[in-house]
Amino acid sequence: MSEEFLKVARAAREAAAELAPLPRAPKDRALRAIADALVAHAAEIVAANAEDVERARAEGTSEAMIDRLRLDEGRIAKIADAVREVADLPDPVGEVVRGSTLPNGLELRQLRVPLGVIGIIYEGRPNVTVDAAALCLKSGNAVLLRGSSSAYSSNTALVAVMQGALEGTEVPVGAIQLVPGRTRDSVKELLRARGLVDVLIPRGGASLINSVVEESTVPVIETGVGNCHVYVDAEADVDLAVKILVNAKAQRPSVCNAAETFLVHQDIADAFVPKALEALAEAGVTVHGDERIAAHGAGVVPATDDDFAAEYLSLDIAAAVVGSLEEAVEHIRRHGSGHTDAIVTRSQRAARRFVALVDSAAVAVNASTRFTDGGEFGFGAEIGISTQKLHARGPMGLPELTSTKWVYTGEGHLRTSEGTVVAG
Amino acid sequence: MSEEFLKVARAAREAAAELAPLPRAPKDRALRAIADALVAHAAEIVAANAEDVERARAEGTSEAMIDRLRLDEGRIAKIADAVREVADLPDPVGEVVRGSTLPNGLELRQLRVPLGVIGIIYEGRPNVTVDAAALCLKSGNAVLLRGSSSAYSSNTALVAVMQGALEGTEVPVGAIQLVPGRTRDSVKELLRARGLVDVLIPRGGASLINSVVEESTVPVIETGVGNCHVYVDAEADVDLAVKILVNAKAQRPSVCNAAETFLVHQDIADAFVPKALEALAEAGVTVHGDERIAAHGAGVVPATDDDFAAEYLSLDIAAAVVGSLEEAVEHIRRHGSGHTDAIVTRSQRAARRFVALVDSAAVAVNASTRFTDGGEFGFGAEIGISTQKLHARGPMGLPELTSTKWVYTGEGHLRTSEGTVVAG
Repeated sequence: MSEEFLKVARAAREAAAELAPLPRAPKDRALRAIADALVAHAAEIVAANAEDVERARAEGTSEAMIDRLRLDEGRIAKIADAVREVADLPDPVGEVVRGSTLPNGLELRQLRVPLGVIGIIYEGRPNVTVDAAALCLKSGNAVLLRGSSSAYSSNTALVAVMQGALEGTEVPVGAIQLVPGRTRDSVKELLRARGLVDVLIPRGGASLINSVVEESTVPVIETGVGNCHVYVDAEADVDLAVKILVNAKAQRPSVCNAAETFLVHQDIADAFVPKALEALAEAGVTVHGDERIAAHGAGVVPATDDDFAAEYLSLDIAAAVVGSLEEAVEHIRRHGSGHTDAIVTRSQRAARRFVALVDSAAVAVNASTRFTDGGEFGFGAEIGISTQKLHARGPMGLPELTSTKWVYTGEGHLRTSEGTVVAG
Repeated sequence: MSEEFLKVARAAREAAAELAPLPRAPKDRALRAIADALVAHAAEIVAANAEDVERARAEGTSEAMIDRLRLDEGRIAKIADAVREVADLPDPVGEVVRGSTLPNGLELRQLRVPLGVIGIIYEGRPNVTVDAAALCLKSGNAVLLRGSSSAYSSNTALVAVMQGALEGTEVPVGAIQLVPGRTRDSVKELLRARGLVDVLIPRGGASLINSVVEESTVPVIETGVGNCHVYVDAEADVDLAVKILVNAKAQRPSVCNAAETFLVHQDIADAFVPKALEALAEAGVTVHGDERIAAHGAGVVPATDDDFAAEYLSLDIAAAVVGSLEEAVEHIRRHGSGHTDAIVTRSQRAARRFVALVDSAAVAVNASTRFTDGGEFGFGAEIGISTQKLHARGPMGLPELTSTKWVYTGEGHLRTSEGTVVAG
């Protein structure tokens, strides 16, 4: 590993040890200091961001992508507000998750503790730099940030401002670190930093996440790939199903909880599909359907297996007719990403069965898939949506950024082959 | 991957889908059928085990290891009893972990669900084959078992008996699988089975666990390496500290929650160390100490850094004098394995500080480290002791073999830029 990387990783490790036992108040003071500093130094941040924007333009980046990259004083004020909101959230650290007095008198407690050092690898907008740092700090973790190389100047400025803000606080400056270097090597170092980094959270497309999972020796929490389904059951209310489908697909097509496929029971296809095709067309959505879908309207593009596997993130949707609820479940099992799948039905029995059989982070009943979101769930903030089964599944809020520690207290408790003896 | 491996892995995957939605009663019936079958087929199991024992003897294995390997009707009856005890435990699946009605009326529930397919790689006695299968089945998971090649005949017989017992039950036979093959290749296949296996739990020594973590693309839960410390604080009761230390080291030295190092505050070293050395010598323990320990008695072997890092699992212990509680914490941070560390003190302040600063799965206050154990914690059974921070930390019972699923139920809930609209 490079000296530069080891330096920041070790600084984060040391800061994590200092930060972990801090109670809420000093952490909240540090977060408010960060928010104030971001506003106070907005001009410097905008100047650094201008370098990224200029470079992106020179490289022929699309205006839409440049708009995602751009920071101005208004956007920085919003980022600062989000940090203040994190300060207002309860602190998960120290929560007693379970506790009891054992039969032998030992007092047993399971407490929430920080994970330690969290590595975040992300492709998103520069605001993620600040959001992720704030959530890690609040949950008592040091953070190693590895953002998109296209936002490197912005991220460098944002981290410098945040570190500067920590200088007058009880939170160690080393708790927020940018991984140095813009090349892919700096990602590789993070992936091999077992012992220095406790968990990696990749946020981005499927290819980023797969490469992290394949190469990392540090434990990984996979996030965010969403091939979400809406299944319209034989006993669905057709008009309701159309509304849920259009909302799930078109309300914000670029996000991971948008629907990418709809499946409809054959018994209701004649009633549902024509109305659905019409409503989707009105919303500007292209339908990639199987033959039985195409039979109901013009403009349906023939679907391949690739369509059923696709996370379009655009105004496209795959569609198929299925013979039964079980066939829908089987389709979701084969093609889905384990994010969110919805059923629309009036049948209590069908809803219960779909919920039991679909193996995804979230299952929606008579609701849009768009509600799978830390904000909607009342978490106040989220670091991402886990689509794996270990540690955290679904929207990850502050408690998902913690581990636990068992504490047991006795007065001279010894274990013997005949049971506990208290030596006191 | 070999056809043989893919066949059992796919069978496990299919079985997992069938097993996951089963409620408690059919799972408990299947467990009792397994217990009965083990007793009924004890003679066949003993005959298969005799092949392993004979091979081990021909290879020059020690009698102590052969005794660990050996099965007789009495031991098989005990294994069957342990399966019945698992049947008596509550089912974690379906537990509502969190639940609320959101401000928009959506009913939100977080439910415990099985992980899916669990791979267990273990070096232990053949009873682990049955224990692990029972815990996985009870928690709704299919299991791929990869035991020691020295117990391959025994494990083949045990799995055949368990599969036979499942034939008359609602639990699919494929839910319990032995990974075919005795060579290291079969472990490698398990490590690369991402998508077929949801989690791997290696149980064994540090080298097994490290190689699994290094090579696996499947998420891993690390278990069981225990370099546990007893720190005797300046304000400890000396006699109590001696008793706790001897119990932690010598009551059962071969297990992961046995103490491997003691640290003593310099202000109490003169009072504590001579008594500790005498009591440890009486218990047959060799002390590997630093110079300040050695000054207090004959027979202290000079300690190196290797001693402080060692998990002896024998009647040996490393020892050092420290200048402060913080120095003890720093020593534990540098050399410990994050399993269990104990403080002996009369000071509330010192206990609080030690608990806050030591970053281990369990921290004991005025109690032996030997209590870090699923049985002692009241879990009824344990699959291992996690020394990592993700997903599960410390003793892992049935709930630690589950994930969760979010379910939200509405009546036509749509998400709009102005908030939730109910289309119903």
